[in-house]
Amino acid sequence: MDGKISEDKKRIEQQIQFITEADKVKNIFRQTYLADGKRKENDAEHSWHLALSAVLLKEHMKEDVDLTKVMIMVLIHDLVEIDAGDTYAYDEAGAATKREREVKAADRIFGILPEDQGRYFRALWDEFEEYETADAKFAHLLDNFQPLLLNDASDGKSWAEHGVHRSQVCRRNERIPETSETVWEKMLEIMDKHVEKGNLNAD
Amino acid sequence: MDGKISEDKKRIEQQIQFITEADKVKNIFRQTYLADGKRKENDAEHSWHLALSAVLLKEHMKEDVDLTKVMIMVLIHDLVEIDAGDTYAYDEAGAATKREREVKAADRIFGILPEDQGRYFRALWDEFEEYETADAKFAHLLDNFQPLLLNDASDGKSWAEHGVHRSQVCRRNERIPETSETVWEKMLEIMDKHVEKGNLNAD
Repeated sequence: MDGKISEDKKRIEQQIQFITEADKVKNIFRQTYLADGKRKENDAEHSWHLALSAVLLKEHMKEDVDLTKVMIMVLIHDLVEIDAGDTYAYDEAGAATKREREVKAADRIFGILPEDQGRYFRALWDEFEEYETADAKFAHLLDNFQPLLLNDASDGKSWAEHGVHRSQVCRRNERIPETSETVWEKMLEIMDKHVEKGNLNAD
Repeated sequence: MDGKISEDKKRIEQQIQFITEADKVKNIFRQTYLADGKRKENDAEHSWHLALSAVLLKEHMKEDVDLTKVMIMVLIHDLVEIDAGDTYAYDEAGAATKREREVKAADRIFGILPEDQGRYFRALWDEFEEYETADAKFAHLLDNFQPLLLNDASDGKSWAEHGVHRSQVCRRNERIPETSETVWEKMLEIMDKHVEKGNLNAD
């Protein structure tokens, strides 16, 4: 068989295996409810929502960002949860072992891909986790802002269920002001509204 | 208030309204089952899966494609179903009224956004629907290949339930050979396997 064809066939086999494995995040549920409050959101839906929001909200970022890179980053950022599970934003016990569980998962899951593509995804995931570059900051902003919007739409359902305090949301979002003032102002507005409504505990 | 700040605030309000409205596709279910065969897939999960696959499968396309554009195209291609509902690939009665229902939906949904962003998304959706450019062909390939992979993983569950014939799958995918030979060969291989297994009707 022709070398190029044989190599293509091998690559597509690995890609299909990865695409099929990735399907599992559709069954990893988060603590955030959909906007209608009827059920919790899963990682695939969440990641789709972030990538879509990236296109729209890029204009509000203080630093220049690479949209394509950020989109891919948010599309893959939760794949490690296939093995490591979802750790709720305000779960301190879970947070302690999160990193170790996720690194092991990244090794296995990105390792399914052709080596160059696996390395590329892994580098993007590492960049996201390190939270240093403008692209990683934008990706984290999306990852934090979207559940806030869903909490707002679902009348603070997830916050109320977990007895979350305004200061916890602020701490989790402490790097948003350096990333986008427009988004941060909106976040404050939403938090204050839900403290007022009693869905978020005042401090 | 400063003009730029006031304009930013207005835009982010419209963007949030759109992001919240788009949340509804998480409740639009398709006929395809997840890889594990346990439940049907929704439009948000499907769109996430296509955008992820775009990054990996781009290398198999015959023509050069614009990855960012294709990713956005697949992320938004099913938003019209919020109003128009999902029309199953092999539902001929539904197909007759599909176009009219979807155009009306596109007017309303993309109309929520700031005018320039709404126009951009609408142009991408139109390009997808027209199925002429290399980018639209790649987006359609993704839209067709992903359910085939899920059907394969779930032992042809959706095909068997609907009594689908191999010729119907071939007709639906008749433009794949001009888009990618590698993907088309893989599709044929999967179809033949499921005819063999009795999940897809021979003709």
